[in-house]
Amino acid sequence: MGKVTVVGIGPGSYEDMTIRADTALRACDAIVGYPVYVDLVRDRYPGKELHSTPMTREAERCQLALELARSGKTVAMVCSGDSGIYGMAALVYELRGEAQEPEIQVVPGLTAACSAAAVLGAPLTHDFAVISLSDRLTPWETIEKRLDCAAAADLTIALYNPASHGRPDHLKRACDILLRRLPGERLCGIVRNIGREGQSSRILTLAELREAEVDMFCTVLIGSAVVKTVAGQLVTPRGYRNV
Amino acid sequence: MGKVTVVGIGPGSYEDMTIRADTALRACDAIVGYPVYVDLVRDRYPGKELHSTPMTREAERCQLALELARSGKTVAMVCSGDSGIYGMAALVYELRGEAQEPEIQVVPGLTAACSAAAVLGAPLTHDFAVISLSDRLTPWETIEKRLDCAAAADLTIALYNPASHGRPDHLKRACDILLRRLPGERLCGIVRNIGREGQSSRILTLAELREAEVDMFCTVLIGSAVVKTVAGQLVTPRGYRNV
Repeated sequence: MGKVTVVGIGPGSYEDMTIRADTALRACDAIVGYPVYVDLVRDRYPGKELHSTPMTREAERCQLALELARSGKTVAMVCSGDSGIYGMAALVYELRGEAQEPEIQVVPGLTAACSAAAVLGAPLTHDFAVISLSDRLTPWETIEKRLDCAAAADLTIALYNPASHGRPDHLKRACDILLRRLPGERLCGIVRNIGREGQSSRILTLAELREAEVDMFCTVLIGSAVVKTVAGQLVTPRGYRNV
Repeated sequence: MGKVTVVGIGPGSYEDMTIRADTALRACDAIVGYPVYVDLVRDRYPGKELHSTPMTREAERCQLALELARSGKTVAMVCSGDSGIYGMAALVYELRGEAQEPEIQVVPGLTAACSAAAVLGAPLTHDFAVISLSDRLTPWETIEKRLDCAAAADLTIALYNPASHGRPDHLKRACDILLRRLPGERLCGIVRNIGREGQSSRILTLAELREAEVDMFCTVLIGSAVVKTVAGQLVTPRGYRNV
């Protein structure tokens, strides 16, 4: 019996992978994943059996990984960011059910909130929330409620999946909810293609964010009440200087 | 002029560091940090100048790193977890002020929410909040408000700093706030010493969590409404099977 390692590869650059993720990819027989993520790693780990399934075929992909493991293979299932956050780890556990085999190991990776924050400066210094704007698996009303509560709690907010072809106006709708509680001048940031070729970032106000063009390669951060810019970086002070 | 790289070393094991963090530590002249974190890395990176300052002397530590960089040294300032989340990155930016030198680079790392989740199974699959129970820098009323809003929003909640010598009852007080909205049977998890010797974990209910013994080496996760156990792992289903 083989095993399935669900590997978070981070934002996409080799340097932002953990050593554990790198080791798992070196050691595996087969790499399974969404085509974009398999393409990100295939050249660095030659000689592996490669399998990919498209975006809406996640259950099929996880079943395939479990089948390969049952046939004795060591399988690395690659996910972008952290393998547990909007990733495949839960689905692999669910599809295995109450069986104890094949062995499943979850290797966490840098999630986009952390890697986007490091590009912008240090905006996640204190309490924060991570919320996806995709309503493919979550009712929009739930997303609205979470945005409203996060703003009421003065949490820094990281928005994942701020837009896609099928829902071009989700970020605008999210900003409208946040603007009920937060001022239009609140500082925010957008990072696109984190750690990949063509990485770009922008600091802007919440009012400007409402009008901004974003796509599925963007991560958005909305600052808490104390966020500010320092030498052009987005910074949430921790407060040590006042203690 | 040297530079300051603020390095998130993750939970503490070498394998959970990113390749970028490892490279920064190899390349630096001096390592600066809280004594425990300097001790975690000193043997692996011999021949470095080592500097540490105690827990309440963070500003002094950051000033020292900036001074060393001004004197031409390449400085790695080590932080546990992610260098931007309850870490030193913001303070280094603040203390440098509007100057553009020395150069500051933030290297993100695995934050405890991610590494704890991977130990417990896959409880962070969907939207979540990270909240620290330390009131050293945040008024307790703010913490209470954030806990209440996170529970109202049905976010999975990761609690950092659930207890220390000076505030042994913070977790109990936090549970009491959460129990106003969440059932006592809600599944939670505790992970202690993530990625270090003596790592342990436990899945328990919110009612049991209220009575649990925790210390500053623990990270606590509180599940959302859909959390469950699968083969002994704490899992938040993502819902693909129902789509």
